[in-house]
Amino acid sequence: MKNCVFCNIPKEEVILETKHCYVVPDKYPISKGHILVVPKNHYENITQIPDKELFDIIKTIKKMENKMVEKLKAKGIDLRQNYRPFVAESRLRKSHIHFHLIPRSFEDLVYKQQGKAKRGELSDKEIKR
Amino acid sequence: MKNCVFCNIPKEEVILETKHCYVVPDKYPISKGHILVVPKNHYENITQIPDKELFDIIKTIKKMENKMVEKLKAKGIDLRQNYRPFVAESRLRKSHIHFHLIPRSFEDLVYKQQGKAKRGELSDKEIKR
Repeated sequence: MKNCVFCNIPKEEVILETKHCYVVPDKYPISKGHILVVPKNHYENITQIPDKELFDIIKTIKKMENKMVEKLKAKGIDLRQNYRPFVAESRLRKSHIHFHLIPRSFEDLVYKQQGKAKRGELSDKEIKR
Repeated sequence: MKNCVFCNIPKEEVILETKHCYVVPDKYPISKGHILVVPKNHYENITQIPDKELFDIIKTIKKMENKMVEKLKAKGIDLRQNYRPFVAESRLRKSHIHFHLIPRSFEDLVYKQQGKAKRGELSDKEIKR
């Protein structure tokens, strides 16, 4: 698509290219080493991605996690794929699906924010339903 | 593992079982319909999961997303896999890897929290590196 940034990734930004996806740095990183795995084709959600391409993407995620833990000495990686319209910052509204890989360290920004999350608790009845 | 809740999921909580994973409701849901996809085997991160099991998991995620958007009339789904030690609430520290599927609606709790996220911005130099 002509106006989609993820359909038009500049070659010099690509960290890794596979048959079906690109790995690029996130331009607005949550933590050091925050990268994106982006399918080459323009899909808006996981259900649209053919299995073959989805397998390539998840294998790439696995490969990058390995490298990141090794090279960045991150303790672990968070994987996120946010549904497009629900990212509050408008500059980040991209309909082309992409998977975030966010290296984590102790008590970083993400950790502090998660601490504030209010979560409900299901009753046994609700679980059964 | 004996003391791991995800190695000992009660059968009555299982929404769907495949060859390599279970789908169960999250007991502390962020939004209505929040579920977990949990591998049957005890792994702590994606890199430990054999490709065959990982493909089963991602296919199950795809299948559940389809069902959730259809049944819950959710606008879309967020996928998250948090690295264990970095979840602030101690009751949620589970080393057995699991994937969250969180149905999203406009301006829900997740949306409001994301709005507060401070993110850095990479210089061209940093992107190249």
